Amino acid sequence: MKARVLVTLKSAVLDPQGKAIEGALRSLGVPGVASVRQGKVFDVELDAADPAKAEATLKEACEKLLANTVIETYRIEFVG
Amino acid sequence: MKARVLVTLKSAVLDPQGKAIEGALRSLGVPGVASVRQGKVFDVELDAADPAKAEATLKEACEKLLANTVIETYRIEFVG
Repeated sequence: MKARVLVTLKSAVLDPQGKAIEGALRSLGVPGVASVRQGKVFDVELDAADPAKAEATLKEACEKLLANTVIETYRIEFVG
Repeated sequence: MKARVLVTLKSAVLDPQGKAIEGALRSLGVPGVASVRQGKVFDVELDAADPAKAEATLKEACEKLLANTVIETYRIEFVG
């Protein structure tokens, strides 16, 4: 089973990397970009065929490793 | 206008970071993860209200900065 996990900063958290990208785009002459926030995406292949088991595995992976749940949120999407 | 840009490694490219995450999940006792590939996600807010202009701006941003098009591919999704 394939899934995609999207990990993004909570909206209240400042994103210095995003700010740096905004500045770089401006200096590269790319117009009209008001703001940028960067996150992580994980494409995960799971052995389990059962969606409930797969979801439990992914939640455990996010809570333990993929996301810092103090400042980040994660969203699990099953693919195909 | 809001958009999400997903940047992922081309499938033929080895992902050492993904391999490291697989190993870490195994040692953390998270079962049943066959493979992990990591990418980047950018949530971008654009001044332009015209979708065509916004798409052109995002393509330029990806080609110039957000993606290394030699080893990565990018996908643009408009949000809301």
